[in-house]
Amino acid sequence: MTSLTDSSPSSTATLLVSCADQRGIVATLAQALFGRGANILDADQHTDPVAGQFFQRIRIDLAELVGDRPALEGVIREVAEQYGMRWSLRYGSRRKRVAVFVSRYDHCLYDLLLRERSGELNGEIALIVSNHPDLEGIARQFEVPYHLLPITKENKASQESKEIDLLRAEQIDLVVLARYMQVLSGTFIAAFPSQIINIHHSFLPAFIGGRPYHQAHERGVKLIGATAHYATTDLDEGPIIEQDVTRASHRDSVADLVRRGRDLERVVLARAVRWHLEDRVLAFGRKTVVFS
Amino acid sequence: MTSLTDSSPSSTATLLVSCADQRGIVATLAQALFGRGANILDADQHTDPVAGQFFQRIRIDLAELVGDRPALEGVIREVAEQYGMRWSLRYGSRRKRVAVFVSRYDHCLYDLLLRERSGELNGEIALIVSNHPDLEGIARQFEVPYHLLPITKENKASQESKEIDLLRAEQIDLVVLARYMQVLSGTFIAAFPSQIINIHHSFLPAFIGGRPYHQAHERGVKLIGATAHYATTDLDEGPIIEQDVTRASHRDSVADLVRRGRDLERVVLARAVRWHLEDRVLAFGRKTVVFS
Amino acid sequence: MTSLTDSSPSSTATLLVSCADQRGIVATLAQALFGRGANILDADQHTDPVAGQFFQRIRIDLAELVGDRPALEGVIREVAEQYGMRWSLRYGSRRKRVAVFVSRYDHCLYDLLLRERSGELNGEIALIVSNHPDLEGIARQFEVPYHLLPITKENKASQESKEIDLLRAEQIDLVVLARYMQVLSGTFIAAFPSQIINIHHSFLPAFIGGRPYHQAHERGVKLIGATAHYATTDLDEGPIIEQDVTRASHRDSVADLVRRGRDLERVVLARAVRWHLEDRVLAFGRKTVVFS
Amino acid sequence: MTSLTDSSPSSTATLLVSCADQRGIVATLAQALFGRGANILDADQHTDPVAGQFFQRIRIDLAELVGDRPALEGVIREVAEQYGMRWSLRYGSRRKRVAVFVSRYDHCLYDLLLRERSGELNGEIALIVSNHPDLEGIARQFEVPYHLLPITKENKASQESKEIDLLRAEQIDLVVLARYMQVLSGTFIAAFPSQIINIHHSFLPAFIGGRPYHQAHERGVKLIGATAHYATTDLDEGPIIEQDVTRASHRDSVADLVRRGRDLERVVLARAVRWHLEDRVLAFGRKTVVFS
Repeated sequence: MTSLTDSSPSSTATLLVSCADQRGIVATLAQALFGRGANILDADQHTDPVAGQFFQRIRIDLAELVGDRPALEGVIREVAEQYGMRWSLRYGSRRKRVAVFVSRYDHCLYDLLLRERSGELNGEIALIVSNHPDLEGIARQFEVPYHLLPITKENKASQESKEIDLLRAEQIDLVVLARYMQVLSGTFIAAFPSQIINIHHSFLPAFIGGRPYHQAHERGVKLIGATAHYATTDLDEGPIIEQDVTRASHRDSVADLVRRGRDLERVVLARAVRWHLEDRVLAFGRKTVVFS
Repeated sequence: MTSLTDSSPSSTATLLVSCADQRGIVATLAQALFGRGANILDADQHTDPVAGQFFQRIRIDLAELVGDRPALEGVIREVAEQYGMRWSLRYGSRRKRVAVFVSRYDHCLYDLLLRERSGELNGEIALIVSNHPDLEGIARQFEVPYHLLPITKENKASQESKEIDLLRAEQIDLVVLARYMQVLSGTFIAAFPSQIINIHHSFLPAFIGGRPYHQAHERGVKLIGATAHYATTDLDEGPIIEQDVTRASHRDSVADLVRRGRDLERVVLARAVRWHLEDRVLAFGRKTVVFS
Repeated sequence: MTSLTDSSPSSTATLLVSCADQRGIVATLAQALFGRGANILDADQHTDPVAGQFFQRIRIDLAELVGDRPALEGVIREVAEQYGMRWSLRYGSRRKRVAVFVSRYDHCLYDLLLRERSGELNGEIALIVSNHPDLEGIARQFEVPYHLLPITKENKASQESKEIDLLRAEQIDLVVLARYMQVLSGTFIAAFPSQIINIHHSFLPAFIGGRPYHQAHERGVKLIGATAHYATTDLDEGPIIEQDVTRASHRDSVADLVRRGRDLERVVLARAVRWHLEDRVLAFGRKTVVFS
Repeated sequence: MTSLTDSSPSSTATLLVSCADQRGIVATLAQALFGRGANILDADQHTDPVAGQFFQRIRIDLAELVGDRPALEGVIREVAEQYGMRWSLRYGSRRKRVAVFVSRYDHCLYDLLLRERSGELNGEIALIVSNHPDLEGIARQFEVPYHLLPITKENKASQESKEIDLLRAEQIDLVVLARYMQVLSGTFIAAFPSQIINIHHSFLPAFIGGRPYHQAHERGVKLIGATAHYATTDLDEGPIIEQDVTRASHRDSVADLVRRGRDLERVVLARAVRWHLEDRVLAFGRKTVVFS
């Protein structure tokens, strides 16, 4: 579908494909790549028997490519048309650009910035958007542009419109809602399909909506969770990318759950972001395929 | 409140107390026990600041008891009256008697029987009740009486009445619903307050009701869970004793989730049963205190 | 290398291959299978860059096979010779045959028998071997032949020789040491390369050798573990298939660790056995590739 | 033994005691506290039957204290002398002072600083000591004094002597070795008994010594771990406070293990530090009691 071509000398690329399941897909695609000198380094595939869908992630080595990149894309396009595939090819040299949306909580933002700086993320945090000025100091400290766009009932549509323009101008590939305390409109979400990751501070579908740690405390659960999912117009209903939990007990106050939850939120969100940036996640319907 | 006295020579006992939080409780109770020669081996306590409730579990050594057991119970009763405590004292020699309710799934039943036989449970499985004949062979193999009480819409009330009579005649302390596929009536549940443990095959409050593995598969969660809770008239709403989860992925079919879930159900139910039998669990409202 | 042909109508097969990493392997193999009408249902591969080794597991659908099974095996053999591959092809109808070796502990044996009976294992427990008579009753109850072969210093070689003959006569594919308290000789182990799975009751390489729970208790660790590995002549040094841990605390006596360890041993061993029976495990050197 | 008195109005205190197990300890201590108007908010105790040792942690409310703090300490001292107890009483207003030792890795340092700032730690990071200048920028950013003390074979003794003076002058209660890449001398360690916490990047006792992630990769383990322990003169042999693990697979390179290990190291070290600062940890011999 898309191909993010650039002129870098990097010699690997990642191909993601999905289509209705059919006979011969794997062999045809392998043969097409091999015919252009693209060596398969790694391939992972999945067939969902209920949905009748086929998914594949292929990492290829381009060092001995026969012809140029457009030629390679040409043979992939041919196979894709034959099988009715959606596909994307990302060259290794092309690092995805990330926008992080925050409000007042800093733990997820700090975590993502530190991981990016330590080289954990296959992408760069290009900018931060916030509806509050609180975290501007952190942005400055890490030398990332901070766009303050306060939201009121009145200005919401126009502010979101500015945000969309900004994200497009900056060629953003992924929006991360790192405890961003605003509900995005359907318009915004539709502008970035499967490109917005949200962290919800509960084990979805338990404790949907606000104050999940309060709900968890009141219910007396013995584990609390966090869920990273693609944002869709149905709040907290988007395809789940990753979840994890940690123990809770009768000794934990709401404040204790909040504290423990912070650790969970950070690692769950970081995993989802990392996997997305490594082209490991394919969303379909309400679910995701995550190639490990 | 209750005291399960017996004449055994066993020299330990476990005291559970709960009441509105007040000053001096710990010292008064410790002094009262000490005054009768009852040495405190182990004490764990918890104060719920929101509910304003105090909970304590004390294990005592009776080897150098001054006076007899009724005398000990007398001084505890005095303190209990002073502070408005609910209390129970169980002598170590008194093993609790358990009834396991099953339908067709055998994994939890097998698990409990094997654990009892290996000495893991501080209690004995006195009898099995089932609405199906399927698991009678297992009961025979472990030499446990099997009471077949099939349930129809028409006979439900009368069969439950027989069950209640049976459990009382057999002096049952704990009813374990080990994947028992019948909803108990309010009458039955009221007859055994905080004495019925159910295993639900999801991470409550997610996926309440039937077919939780199907619901989990459809929602695309990345973890599945199991929950052991005291049965109350609100289905799946009883106080949670224990929960645990295990990983799931896009590769898991519903059958895979069911298989993995069996392992979870067994260990989660076994932990809850073991803790209850060791007098480690105190229910209050919709929650439990579980002393580790 | 081996091909377990049979005449069953079952329409799937699993191909496992490994060789030195080379260009074009994936495409050549996919093309060869496709050319015989064998549709790839599922493929997982791994390249170990340090060892320079390539590993692949392919599940194929034989419903529209062109020609017979020997013809399919012929084209695989050709590719294998071209690339210097080790390979095995197992037809879906062929269930692997398992021998379980036990001594006195029954928890792993019970667990495997129950899982086999519930259909969790892609294989059948064909026989039980023991150096003690203790568990014969369980074997009888599940109607599995029990071979009592007591071991002394003097008779060890001859008894092992009988065991090897028995396993060969019974066409055993996998030997499971389910807390078998005898060290196998190098001769025995060499007779079943990567076909003997042992469960060690610690998180290897911590607490090698005897009484690991005692060692763990003495060291004051906060987690205890279990490890399933292929048996090699270096005790507790074989390639690890699976490991897991559970929490321990200062409150746990050695007996508590033993009890908790039983749960761990069961699930860790069961996972390793299941994966082996589904042809998901490839050993190389001191390591394993486990396709999930 | 020690009592960290101050004049703050804060109304709680934490008492830690340990001694040879004897009859009547709990009652005597509870009565003594009650007699001075010190209400017991929370009490946790443990008896190690093998070592014959008794341990207790009591949180008390001083709001209705009869007499002053020295009077309270007087009655505790009396009980302590009677039973041969070691004890410490810390008033809630007194926040412990922490020194963090680092070299070049910043993840644990950042983590501790962020946790302190968010109020998670019951203490303050008073200073940072390093043998390298690399992390000075982080110190400045969080406004914590950074003491650069490069270590060579020749100057080690004199630099450590300066460090000891510094820690004493600054009234440091806890030294945290947050991936400090220098072995401390016996003299240094003896100066701060049970007051130095180290993070080791393996599941001890597996992979003692240097490059544990390389060792883990070579051994092919399926889980990697991290261990926080008190530093003793026997390297990696000190009493373990906390451990945790995370999954590894054949797909993980050493670099992947290092990345995942960073997350583990951070949370394991943070837990150990938090518990120590809340007076939850009592070391005895090679073990710890950790009151939850």
